[in-house]
Amino acid sequence: MSILVQKFGGTSVADVEKIKNVANAVIKEKLNGSKVVVVVSAMGHTTDNLVKLAKDITNKPSPREMDMLLSTGEQVSMALLAMALNEAGYKSISLTGLQAGIKTEDCHMCARIVDIDTTNIKKYLNEDNIVIVAGFQGVCRDNEITTLGRGGSDTTAVALACALKAQRCDIYSDVEAVYTADPRVIKTAQKLKTISYDEMLELARVGANVLHPRSVETAKLNNMPMRVRSSFKLDDLGTLIIGVEEMELNKPVTGLACDASQVRIVICDVEDTPGNAARLFTLLAKQNLSVDMIIQSYARKSTNTNDIAFTVTKSDLEKFKSIEDEVNKIINSKNIFIDEDIVKVSIVGAGMIDRPGIAAKMFDTLARENINIKMISTSEIKISCLVEKKYSEAAAVALCKAFELDGAQVADVKGDLPVV
Amino acid sequence: MSILVQKFGGTSVADVEKIKNVANAVIKEKLNGSKVVVVVSAMGHTTDNLVKLAKDITNKPSPREMDMLLSTGEQVSMALLAMALNEAGYKSISLTGLQAGIKTEDCHMCARIVDIDTTNIKKYLNEDNIVIVAGFQGVCRDNEITTLGRGGSDTTAVALACALKAQRCDIYSDVEAVYTADPRVIKTAQKLKTISYDEMLELARVGANVLHPRSVETAKLNNMPMRVRSSFKLDDLGTLIIGVEEMELNKPVTGLACDASQVRIVICDVEDTPGNAARLFTLLAKQNLSVDMIIQSYARKSTNTNDIAFTVTKSDLEKFKSIEDEVNKIINSKNIFIDEDIVKVSIVGAGMIDRPGIAAKMFDTLARENINIKMISTSEIKISCLVEKKYSEAAAVALCKAFELDGAQVADVKGDLPVV
Repeated sequence: MSILVQKFGGTSVADVEKIKNVANAVIKEKLNGSKVVVVVSAMGHTTDNLVKLAKDITNKPSPREMDMLLSTGEQVSMALLAMALNEAGYKSISLTGLQAGIKTEDCHMCARIVDIDTTNIKKYLNEDNIVIVAGFQGVCRDNEITTLGRGGSDTTAVALACALKAQRCDIYSDVEAVYTADPRVIKTAQKLKTISYDEMLELARVGANVLHPRSVETAKLNNMPMRVRSSFKLDDLGTLIIGVEEMELNKPVTGLACDASQVRIVICDVEDTPGNAARLFTLLAKQNLSVDMIIQSYARKSTNTNDIAFTVTKSDLEKFKSIEDEVNKIINSKNIFIDEDIVKVSIVGAGMIDRPGIAAKMFDTLARENINIKMISTSEIKISCLVEKKYSEAAAVALCKAFELDGAQVADVKGDLPVV
Repeated sequence: MSILVQKFGGTSVADVEKIKNVANAVIKEKLNGSKVVVVVSAMGHTTDNLVKLAKDITNKPSPREMDMLLSTGEQVSMALLAMALNEAGYKSISLTGLQAGIKTEDCHMCARIVDIDTTNIKKYLNEDNIVIVAGFQGVCRDNEITTLGRGGSDTTAVALACALKAQRCDIYSDVEAVYTADPRVIKTAQKLKTISYDEMLELARVGANVLHPRSVETAKLNNMPMRVRSSFKLDDLGTLIIGVEEMELNKPVTGLACDASQVRIVICDVEDTPGNAARLFTLLAKQNLSVDMIIQSYARKSTNTNDIAFTVTKSDLEKFKSIEDEVNKIINSKNIFIDEDIVKVSIVGAGMIDRPGIAAKMFDTLARENINIKMISTSEIKISCLVEKKYSEAAAVALCKAFELDGAQVADVKGDLPVV
């Protein structure tokens, strides 16, 4: 009998009625003949409330105690879901990260799963239980409780699916599917029936807040099919995420995403000496500052200086400001310019690999709208342009039209695939 | 260096400010030179709120999942207290029941502690940590989470104190001390500086809601000194609970307690046949009905019948009613009379053992107030009388006066003892 892993996010288990609704979604799959393993997040705003309690006590909570605190959230929702399934007449048991055999690195608040001992889960599945596992948590040496950091519950679900050799991992949230673009901006954005791991990864990284990249990476590595679907529309199959080799690529661009969380930092008139860039980015890395786009201009012959520009997330800006003096010192710069008024617009598509001219078409589309491009970065399947924030929507609308991502076109850019 | 165990109840950790206050109480003992182990309950109404969530899902939650649910409460408060101690500059670590080595029976919601492996606690104490342990919880086989039922956190604290050979176990709550009588009723009731385990046990059983009898029994068995004190008045030493052999007994009666939680059930005209009482109370025991006072009258020669009267707690009354027919059948009775309008008034004192006339004095005191006694039960150090509920206060006032338990007398009935 095949195993299905279902994961339900915080909004899906936000209150007792929603937990009962989740129980129905689980029972539906059980009745379809699957052995079901369910991963849950904490109820609604539980985690936020716990974080607030900690912040009211200290600005620098010990990561170990934060894990102790936050791991309770999932334990509450999983016990309640087990009760709801029992009440509906189904055998069910909830397991903490420890009981589910989820071993992580020896670190707190952002541990990675290193191993899953599925003995316990398999035993309970074989006794006809629906097994519920706390997302986001595991244990390291000495049964110390760890949490997985952002996107942790999705990662738990995918890692469990891989360890159990499940048929599929379904991620339920309040998002119905992956769209060609943000449906709040592009009203005619279309649901995607399928998308490849790589495309999903690029979209996730540029701000489509559907899945955390870690879970998609794990799924890709193990070729584990995932579904993004809504716990409030159980008949809607959402979006299937699979390997690109299983897809029929008809269109070069699959999706568009806008990311307004970045800040551009330009360091002007840096002396063009070997090692300056290395010194700069080593310093930033030491501060745990995650840098996204980087551009270094050609050196000006007259002054033998150039400009280095890069982007960081807004939440890291204060951290950068605190080391601004040090930056000036180590690379002998004086003039640092910070630009918060930007948005990164990206188009993503596995189909662009063999098709020249996609970048040119993107730049041309923006130019026709009189939108100036401040920075550009590209990967194999993604092109990102930094533009002024006020052009965010205009750029998105124009690009959706140009690359046929809106409702005037066919949404299912890959053709119907059989349901996995 | 000696070890001190401190336990803080739900009201003492009800919010962030109170948790900081608890941190101060802990630091005070740390600065006094003790190694400190702290046991905490869940914050304020957390447990009630979790129970309500479960009840909104099912009337019959699985005990295992209830334990999974409820054990999160202590985990939250202990992590926050560890953070508060860290913030104040003290090394501290919080431990779940599992991590603290608390092994229980293989049962849920009312497990008893069978063993404590103190290795982990001692390791952290030796590294100069203040060790915080989740009250109310342990683990049984396969790392299954169990809870200890009512009075569980007090029991955790005392059991830990015994296992660690601590100097003393201090139980902090919103109650300042043990009083000679309920200070809400007897305004002049006096704080007791000391009380013996046995007296405390009798008082606890008859309704003085200060400590759960389980914790006192454990302390008595191990001769572990306990203190009842308030987390809101740190300079008040409260009441010390010790063995009677260490006390100077000056007065026969130490305290008075009223218990309005009982119901009297009278089964009239039961045929006086051997085995009737055994059949009756076996049936009640099977229903898990806890019976307190029992009286069987002399058999009436004329009819060869007698009456059997007993008391159960109000919360068990519905359970009794559901088996009323069965009771009538097995002992061939017809007439069952239920009396909810009663209160049990008890006087307790280790000093009454060698002093005759205490019971007579109690009955006489009540008679002088025209209070009719419906049932009587006695133990070595306790005399309880069941009276009509409306006489509750009158009986308490008269008995306090008669046995010198009110403010007109000296409160410290045992004389000053050295601080343990």
